[in-house]
Amino acid sequence: MIQGIGASAGIAIGKTFVLPNWEWDLPEQKIDVSDLAKEFERLYEGIRTSKHEIEQIKDELAEVVGTEERNIFDAHLAILNDPVFMNEIQGIIKRQYKAAEVAVKEAIDHFVTMFDLLDDEYMKERAIDIKDVGNRLLKHLLGAPEITLPADTQPFILVAKEISPSQLAHLNPQHVLGIVTVSGSTTSHSAIMARALGIPLVVGIDMDLEALVATGDRMVLDGNTGIVILNPSTEQVDAYSELQNRHAEHRDRLRSIAGLRAVTPDGKEIELAANISSLKELEVALRAGAMGVGLFRTEFLYMDRNRFPEEEEQFEVYKAVAERLNGSPLIIRTLDIGGDKQLDYFEVGNEENPFLGYRAIRISLDRKDLFKTQLRAILRASAFGSVKVMYPLISSVEEVRAAKAVLEEVKAELKREGKAFDGGIENGIMIELPAAVSIADFLAEEVDFFSIGTNDLVQFALAVDRMNERISHLYQPFHPAVLRMLRSTVEAAKSKGIHVGVCGELAGDPRALPLWLSLDVDELSMSSHAILPIKERLLCTTRRDSRELLNRLEACRTAQELIGELEAYKQTVDAGMASSSSARNDSGR
Amino acid sequence: MIQGIGASAGIAIGKTFVLPNWEWDLPEQKIDVSDLAKEFERLYEGIRTSKHEIEQIKDELAEVVGTEERNIFDAHLAILNDPVFMNEIQGIIKRQYKAAEVAVKEAIDHFVTMFDLLDDEYMKERAIDIKDVGNRLLKHLLGAPEITLPADTQPFILVAKEISPSQLAHLNPQHVLGIVTVSGSTTSHSAIMARALGIPLVVGIDMDLEALVATGDRMVLDGNTGIVILNPSTEQVDAYSELQNRHAEHRDRLRSIAGLRAVTPDGKEIELAANISSLKELEVALRAGAMGVGLFRTEFLYMDRNRFPEEEEQFEVYKAVAERLNGSPLIIRTLDIGGDKQLDYFEVGNEENPFLGYRAIRISLDRKDLFKTQLRAILRASAFGSVKVMYPLISSVEEVRAAKAVLEEVKAELKREGKAFDGGIENGIMIELPAAVSIADFLAEEVDFFSIGTNDLVQFALAVDRMNERISHLYQPFHPAVLRMLRSTVEAAKSKGIHVGVCGELAGDPRALPLWLSLDVDELSMSSHAILPIKERLLCTTRRDSRELLNRLEACRTAQELIGELEAYKQTVDAGMASSSSARNDSGR
Repeated sequence: MIQGIGASAGIAIGKTFVLPNWEWDLPEQKIDVSDLAKEFERLYEGIRTSKHEIEQIKDELAEVVGTEERNIFDAHLAILNDPVFMNEIQGIIKRQYKAAEVAVKEAIDHFVTMFDLLDDEYMKERAIDIKDVGNRLLKHLLGAPEITLPADTQPFILVAKEISPSQLAHLNPQHVLGIVTVSGSTTSHSAIMARALGIPLVVGIDMDLEALVATGDRMVLDGNTGIVILNPSTEQVDAYSELQNRHAEHRDRLRSIAGLRAVTPDGKEIELAANISSLKELEVALRAGAMGVGLFRTEFLYMDRNRFPEEEEQFEVYKAVAERLNGSPLIIRTLDIGGDKQLDYFEVGNEENPFLGYRAIRISLDRKDLFKTQLRAILRASAFGSVKVMYPLISSVEEVRAAKAVLEEVKAELKREGKAFDGGIENGIMIELPAAVSIADFLAEEVDFFSIGTNDLVQFALAVDRMNERISHLYQPFHPAVLRMLRSTVEAAKSKGIHVGVCGELAGDPRALPLWLSLDVDELSMSSHAILPIKERLLCTTRRDSRELLNRLEACRTAQELIGELEAYKQTVDAGMASSSSARNDSGR
Repeated sequence: MIQGIGASAGIAIGKTFVLPNWEWDLPEQKIDVSDLAKEFERLYEGIRTSKHEIEQIKDELAEVVGTEERNIFDAHLAILNDPVFMNEIQGIIKRQYKAAEVAVKEAIDHFVTMFDLLDDEYMKERAIDIKDVGNRLLKHLLGAPEITLPADTQPFILVAKEISPSQLAHLNPQHVLGIVTVSGSTTSHSAIMARALGIPLVVGIDMDLEALVATGDRMVLDGNTGIVILNPSTEQVDAYSELQNRHAEHRDRLRSIAGLRAVTPDGKEIELAANISSLKELEVALRAGAMGVGLFRTEFLYMDRNRFPEEEEQFEVYKAVAERLNGSPLIIRTLDIGGDKQLDYFEVGNEENPFLGYRAIRISLDRKDLFKTQLRAILRASAFGSVKVMYPLISSVEEVRAAKAVLEEVKAELKREGKAFDGGIENGIMIELPAAVSIADFLAEEVDFFSIGTNDLVQFALAVDRMNERISHLYQPFHPAVLRMLRSTVEAAKSKGIHVGVCGELAGDPRALPLWLSLDVDELSMSSHAILPIKERLLCTTRRDSRELLNRLEACRTAQELIGELEAYKQTVDAGMASSSSARNDSGR
């Protein structure tokens, strides 16, 4: 039994396949001067094929994963379009008469060494991207296969030193029961991909796996606990099979409640909505029983292209989503770029602290041309459904008023042009800055709804970048200060009679559910995969009990005490769910 | 009359001196192989002289400016110690047999080009530093004079294309009445230096100054308004002379109140303390009438060296400051590095958002060895004065408890060793995170005092990096949310009966004074130069009036309204001060 780090949940039981390390076999002879043009053509062909392949990966992934995961591959496309990288390769071919493969290999090595030297986390990530995309290009130039996995055998558990997002994207989840790697972390791009694909993953095995495991060995892998068992006993296999079965039963049970109303036993109904980025994701959300869209991230429309999208393009997407929702609410958030989300064709400039920088509504109010185009598209789509508009990163009353003034301007324009729109379209804002929490009562007078963005709010309240591994232990969504901020925001909204939802990660966290019930939020918007588990829990949680819990939570002085209370409460709900599900099973027999 | 940007306050009237552009005259011939060793020795000698000179500048500046300004020159020392820069120079000498001057020039050009190419603000700043320090080295190798300024003439107004911090440091404020430059900004290193030296500065003159102005022309320059008058009329000279006189009178009046108690006409006394970084700065603070030190920044002891300071070194400094204060309170803040303050010998790693990263108390609690050494030194110094210890960047009750536990551990150690210390030393924390504001009542139960750090608090509350020029207009210390945070923090402290001070920039802002009076803070700690102007104002501001003002402020929904109220109030106090000073003048006649 080996203890690793669980990076993607789920249990795998089966035979292993050990991924072989492969070495590129590069041509040694120089090319002839007369073949230069041909060599360039080979390079361009390799680039075209690589781009095409990356686009394909992205398309395929759209069916199964979210925008965040797909964006990993946008970085790869950007490298293939980068003139600096290309000049380096072309220069080596042209001046040293080396084959395209060799030039690509040398260019990769050059940039990876350079970026590593700079000793900067951002640059190191870029080095990893360059290696990944460079290997793809190399593969096409050499005509090598993507990754040698047996397709005709039984499904297997993949054992590897490391695995790149590209390799993961090519795996067929039907064939791969689980993955265990020597290196890796729970926050790596590969871990994100594995979770999105639903493949159990254990990383950070601190030993020479290749020496311990041979292809065909039997293995049990638990992505929840990080436990890996080599050559498990029959008892161990039985125990984990039993666990697997229970997981499967739970999946079925969840499917059975998709059509039910999301209401507590004592009658409090909460709107469970989805955070989406595209029409495709909406389909997934609707299958999961989403009652609307609490956050439509429009960044998706702006990424992976070389210029800002036109009004017409945006309108078509917003309209399609609105129509598909068939009257259920659709909250469209205006462009939220900057911070860690950049566009290739829009230079924000390098900032010392991008999270505290030029982003979101700040860009929209600075670039009214872009803002108006987007608002026109949103307004026009409002004629086809229940569309609302939401502004991100609001810090002041002035900003809300400025945004609303632009909206009114656009309304007047559309009216003059005789274009249809919902004149009474609702305006809302994200509450994600501590300042916005502080003046929530003032802000509530300006808008129709709030949506609390817990991720950014926690980051700013605690001054913790949660992507920074060195201090990630300080990122505490259940900090007593956060609880107070949430409470005062909801109370401000309620006292002014406006709708209040939550769209950060905390909305889908099962431990937080009693909090939302006791605070009386109107809506929870989350990733589609979280909707049914939250609904299952909601059906068994009474609002009365959660109010009593709130009193205890407010006496907590530390995050640890708070989590203790929430965990204890969660366990009583868990017990209630287990008994109600066995009762249902009994009555079904 | 030309409109520029006022970058350092004050009025200058006099004749101009136009700074000539100079070109280096570099030796063309290659050096002989046999002279290589000699050439290296010349290079080393130049580096030694440059370092010595920079150290001297820093020492001289210590008398007149703060740590922030002197740190500009630490960056220069770091470059002279940088092996990459030195290898580049040595490589050019060794391999190309070029003279040291030429090698230095080429290395400068190489790095400046490289850094500029990276298109990163941080790198661009480094390019400026390399240019500045490289020119200093070049100057020594060529035996060229620092800057050709007439020392024997009348004091003059310096006219230049641009001016570097190094050049400014060499200017004798006695000779230079003021400076006007074509390029530059109010936030540049040079502007910081000019303000610290008290030299009026106007930057950003959008025309070819050298064509307009000749050495010896008469000029009037107003660093407050950015106005520059070429060949002024007698009336203009008279008007600005009158203004100058009033400024001078005001300086005298401020000196006369240094010994008075800081108390309002209706009897509210506030402790006016200083923010300092060294014993030298304490002298300046005491001359300005500081009644204690509200913030001793210990970073100074850790910077500009190649290893962490020993306990004994720290102890000597803390002890000297405590003794010099002669019983007046001294708040020593434990190490506050990270963010934008880095140590050469302590690798924090490059972070995407350093302000939200591994810094301050987070480092101290992670590196208990360093923390204990510092606490031992502080505790031992507590035997020699009224010493208190303060922890920066506190986000939770857990952190305070962890810090206090280390303090208790260190106390027990010292007791066992029989070393003297104040067993009842007071513990305090900076309140500079929104989360700390939210749970200020919980935190107040753990400590003896609060000190509100307004700079960071505003940055995190609004998610605005105030050094980021693109969004600096959003950095609003007078945001209604900040007002509420300040009020709730002070109220939490008062309700638990602990001392509360303010040590951010807002403490020294004249507009904020009625706020502090109405909130009833105990202490304001600020840069020494702000103490007397604040005291003058305090002597004329009644607490009763400021309480009425607070009610009006709390109704303000925007920063603009809030500033409007504060400005209006400030003007009534200004009027009061003017009449009381003229009354004093009259009675003195």
